[in-house]
Amino acid sequence: MKNQKLIDALNNCITHCNYCADACLDTENIKMMVDCIRTDRACAEICAATVKLLAMNSPFAKEMVEKCHKICTQCADECEKHDHQHCKNCAEACRTCAEACKAYLA
Amino acid sequence: MKNQKLIDALNNCITHCNYCADACLDTENIKMMVDCIRTDRACAEICAATVKLLAMNSPFAKEMVEKCHKICTQCADECEKHDHQHCKNCAEACRTCAEACKAYLA
Amino acid sequence: MKNQKLIDALNNCITHCNYCADACLDTENIKMMVDCIRTDRACAEICAATVKLLAMNSPFAKEMVEKCHKICTQCADECEKHDHQHCKNCAEACRTCAEACKAYLA
Amino acid sequence: MKNQKLIDALNNCITHCNYCADACLDTENIKMMVDCIRTDRACAEICAATVKLLAMNSPFAKEMVEKCHKICTQCADECEKHDHQHCKNCAEACRTCAEACKAYLA
Repeated sequence: MKNQKLIDALNNCITHCNYCADACLDTENIKMMVDCIRTDRACAEICAATVKLLAMNSPFAKEMVEKCHKICTQCADECEKHDHQHCKNCAEACRTCAEACKAYLA
Repeated sequence: MKNQKLIDALNNCITHCNYCADACLDTENIKMMVDCIRTDRACAEICAATVKLLAMNSPFAKEMVEKCHKICTQCADECEKHDHQHCKNCAEACRTCAEACKAYLA
Repeated sequence: MKNQKLIDALNNCITHCNYCADACLDTENIKMMVDCIRTDRACAEICAATVKLLAMNSPFAKEMVEKCHKICTQCADECEKHDHQHCKNCAEACRTCAEACKAYLA
Repeated sequence: MKNQKLIDALNNCITHCNYCADACLDTENIKMMVDCIRTDRACAEICAATVKLLAMNSPFAKEMVEKCHKICTQCADECEKHDHQHCKNCAEACRTCAEACKAYLA
């Protein structure tokens, strides 16, 4: 599959964002996690639309990968502020995905 | 609901794009409809991600509405080339949605 | 559009579930809203897949409408436990959608 | 990540279904591929909703995995009727996913 590496990175990012957004709801101090939950949600949605467009070879994929690069970077920055393991894992998945987006756009 | 008019326009656009992409498969001369099917699909995906971000009041909604404006305009242009009733209806839904995006962005 | 009433009810339900899940994050006592957020999220995802299948006239739409009826009913039950206006609105949207599912399945 | 194997199988299935549905539009005899395109589309949507519910640990995930098992099996059966490489690859991805669903449900 063309763009397999980026597709894998996006799927991994989506899974971790959806997982992290949910796991944050079980943390002691939820109020501190609200921005993390929101960024996770937005990141998951934008990456999910993009991975479909990539699989379809849509001419719109490139513009969406630019958006993914931006939201994945923001989401990694946000998740890195927290010590929960799910946040750390999500930050890593988002960072890897942002790099895969950058490589695709180069 | 805030932005209800844009949300309604996006939902109507998504429904018509998904319907049109499917109905095109039943037309006599499918080969002529391939670009229409593809634009419909991309338009539906981008609008679907956007309508979720709008409902969530995400700061990323605005950038996505810009993308919707662009793809809805392209999709309306493509659908208007065809005489099928589903294409005409889809073109109208996309044009109305593009206008709602423009009003939101103003 | 065929099934327009059900499609409208599903779209309205999706919007309210996504909005309610987000608005719950701004409430004073978030811990009390965790089940509501989770049910909203699941309801929005299942209804979003279903509305696409309905627009496509997929033979799988019917089975998914059965799932929607179930999750919309659960989500309405959960949202009705809370006094926030967004929960009340969401409960109403879910209840109306559950009824539209039932009418479709009849 | 819990259920990682099923999540990977679902993501791979979604990608191949979206790719196959699009690649079928470039084949010589599109009319023969209409059922394949439609089953691909339905399979991708149902699996996409499910993979989100799994990542969220939703109590609704299990019921949706049952639906995935069914549609993945149908989609594999349909794709296996065709000699295009993208159909063969999609059939394999759907078959593997159906098996992963079965293992999860066991």
